[in-house]
Amino acid sequence: MGHTPMESRVESVLAKADANMDAALERLFATLRMKSISTDPAYAGEVRACAEWHAADLRGIGFEARVCDTPGHPIVLAKLHAPGKPTALFYGHYDVQPVDPLELWDRDPFEPSIAMLDGRQVITGRGSADDKGQLMTFIEACRAWKEVTGELPLGITVLLEGEEESGGVNLPGFLAAHAEELKADIGLICDTNMWDAETPAISTMLRGLCGEEIFVHAADRDLHSGFYGSAAANPNRVLARILADLHDADGRVTIPHFYDGVPELPPALKAQWEALPFSEAKFLGAVGLSVPAGEKGRSVLEQTWSRPTAEINGMGGGYQGEGFKTVIPAVASAKVSFRLVFDQDPHAIRRNFREFVQARIPADCRVEFKEHGSGQAIGFPIDDPAFGKAREALSAEWGRDAFFIGGGGSIPVTGDIKRHLGMDVILAGFGLEDDRIHSPNEKYDLRCFQKGIRSWVRILAALSR
Amino acid sequence: MGHTPMESRVESVLAKADANMDAALERLFATLRMKSISTDPAYAGEVRACAEWHAADLRGIGFEARVCDTPGHPIVLAKLHAPGKPTALFYGHYDVQPVDPLELWDRDPFEPSIAMLDGRQVITGRGSADDKGQLMTFIEACRAWKEVTGELPLGITVLLEGEEESGGVNLPGFLAAHAEELKADIGLICDTNMWDAETPAISTMLRGLCGEEIFVHAADRDLHSGFYGSAAANPNRVLARILADLHDADGRVTIPHFYDGVPELPPALKAQWEALPFSEAKFLGAVGLSVPAGEKGRSVLEQTWSRPTAEINGMGGGYQGEGFKTVIPAVASAKVSFRLVFDQDPHAIRRNFREFVQARIPADCRVEFKEHGSGQAIGFPIDDPAFGKAREALSAEWGRDAFFIGGGGSIPVTGDIKRHLGMDVILAGFGLEDDRIHSPNEKYDLRCFQKGIRSWVRILAALSR
Repeated sequence: MGHTPMESRVESVLAKADANMDAALERLFATLRMKSISTDPAYAGEVRACAEWHAADLRGIGFEARVCDTPGHPIVLAKLHAPGKPTALFYGHYDVQPVDPLELWDRDPFEPSIAMLDGRQVITGRGSADDKGQLMTFIEACRAWKEVTGELPLGITVLLEGEEESGGVNLPGFLAAHAEELKADIGLICDTNMWDAETPAISTMLRGLCGEEIFVHAADRDLHSGFYGSAAANPNRVLARILADLHDADGRVTIPHFYDGVPELPPALKAQWEALPFSEAKFLGAVGLSVPAGEKGRSVLEQTWSRPTAEINGMGGGYQGEGFKTVIPAVASAKVSFRLVFDQDPHAIRRNFREFVQARIPADCRVEFKEHGSGQAIGFPIDDPAFGKAREALSAEWGRDAFFIGGGGSIPVTGDIKRHLGMDVILAGFGLEDDRIHSPNEKYDLRCFQKGIRSWVRILAALSR
Repeated sequence: MGHTPMESRVESVLAKADANMDAALERLFATLRMKSISTDPAYAGEVRACAEWHAADLRGIGFEARVCDTPGHPIVLAKLHAPGKPTALFYGHYDVQPVDPLELWDRDPFEPSIAMLDGRQVITGRGSADDKGQLMTFIEACRAWKEVTGELPLGITVLLEGEEESGGVNLPGFLAAHAEELKADIGLICDTNMWDAETPAISTMLRGLCGEEIFVHAADRDLHSGFYGSAAANPNRVLARILADLHDADGRVTIPHFYDGVPELPPALKAQWEALPFSEAKFLGAVGLSVPAGEKGRSVLEQTWSRPTAEINGMGGGYQGEGFKTVIPAVASAKVSFRLVFDQDPHAIRRNFREFVQARIPADCRVEFKEHGSGQAIGFPIDDPAFGKAREALSAEWGRDAFFIGGGGSIPVTGDIKRHLGMDVILAGFGLEDDRIHSPNEKYDLRCFQKGIRSWVRILAALSR
């Protein structure tokens, strides 16, 4: 049986993508070498340099590309028209997480390499998976299409954010301000995981996020605990009490109204999740754990996909250096984030959390709050034809049926795109559970990179039909 | 009325001490410039240099002095005989606390200066009060005596420790090993405060200390709180719960048997303390506070002099840098210290604390403990004649009756001297409440330095009779 013209074009583009692999890796390494740590102002210059690099790279393919200033880090915007074809908006982020503790990295986080890990070839370095490696799968797919056919099968706008890892506060305004320019038939994002190393997945439910930082102040200076101990309020003690109070003995969050807008899972979906070939022991065992630590009576998939959480991402106060210092600190602080589901309102959560904290501030102490990013949870209609086409394309590349899954992480832009541009978003990513994103020794499987590019070659073809 | 020969000699020595002031300050500044931070191994060289400096300085006075190695930082030992006279062992420590947070210092902590503070001249710098400035008051008094009379009124051994701020683990063994050489009629220490800037004091009750560091471990790496949040144990949350559990709602420590060996204050002593001209509002107000934060129903003096405490001196876990990082850390840690009173046993406290923590470690977590210094509380007999003589000498210098007081701080060596050498110790110090020891902007009043030297000139004479 012969190929249709489109099928044979896809084969040519796939072959081209494979032939381009060495050059694609060189390009990926070039961007991985840039220390685009958005959360630390010290790296603002490297963040911008990375944006400029991507704009130049996209121009090299044939996109009209520009680097757009925001009150924070810049956004890269690139467009390549395909008259008469459907249109897509691709979103990725070129910023990365900080790398501390640096001493836990086996290799320089900003000197990428190909290494062997458990018998697989992996690309090492900060951002290799989150999100530079992932976003480049899409861009390399566009490059292969353009090189083989002189055009793209879809009209494509690429938007690369530089503040995803630091709250992304400027993106919603940018989307709103450029809504006309950005609107497309469908959104595409490559910033999620596969089901496992063999099974591709589209994430159709994502948790929202609300980040807060609190500072508990007491005396106007650090005190000697011998002279002032017990007589002076200790911010460490006040903070520990607040943080301990966040959960009850069953692992439920105790902030008033926290579970407003959180329904029980529809029985059908719950049944589907229970049928998934998922091993809690394997999931937790991979990081040295064995017992689900969340709400009692909920499975790990429920805990991480459909239940909200409160996590203490950082806390500190007093002397943390070598040895001992008998100090009562003037201030202690914590970074707390909430993962949100369904209809939880991030603004209400923030308000209620602040009241919860304020109610626990004793005499002589005061609290300061610092707002970090927020985004509502989101879900997409898996019966939409675009989702079916993308799923088929993924299944063809990997030789296995792709799954529609939930996801514990938050990609606030997904909700912003839905809200400001009225578009659904297909979240197809090639990350794996053991990629160590946000941790030392982040990596991205070389096979995921290569088959990720091939997957997008196929998805672009599928969506053009 | 004429002076006795001793009285007239004291006057000459006091005059000499005053005449020496500029040179005495130069010497003090020389030792303050040395970064003898004992708790941080990076400064080991500077700690040793400081010990060598003191040995040379003592030799300059006429002492036989040597720097004795220990498994940690060295101890300076110096002796000057006075045949036929009573003997005294003076203890001081030449090591200092770390200086972080450095940005809160108005001046370089290791570039001492004379500055004006609230209309008083003060010596600025780390160690100016704790304990370099204080220990030099004694050494300058010896120098003046030697220069005027060619001898000291007492046989004196000087012992300067280099690990007081880092647990002092090597001192007890050193005292035991050198007991014969160190034994004297009385111990003298200059490492405590006056009652207030006008009223000298001898501290006759000191709290003990027990320091512990705990590390709560969970996963074998830092995790992304989106993927693992709520399913994975969070060491920050476990630690916060442990630290919050340390106190009940009335401010009492909840560790089992913690109050064993803690009697109610004898009514007579309690009455004496209540009669002291002490203002809780002033004491707390000086550091921006107003409400005693310790055990309910106890005065500040009771809380800080006669009641045991548990303080969180440091805690930390996860991301504490700029911005936000949604991480679940692999480990969180805290430094906790207990101030002990009366017959509390530091070893039992440590054991019971560890059991208390262990009982709160959930599945998938483990705890590591690191032992820091410990010492039992101590009290001295204020009706002993030596205490009366020292009190009279202090009263004469300051023109006010010196007080016998308690003290919230811990000077474990006091108990060690009592235990290993069988000696009582007179704790006469010239520190003030606002010296900011262990904090940024440590200072020592110039007047305290000068009148401290003069006080020791008088005390040495008084004890020689």
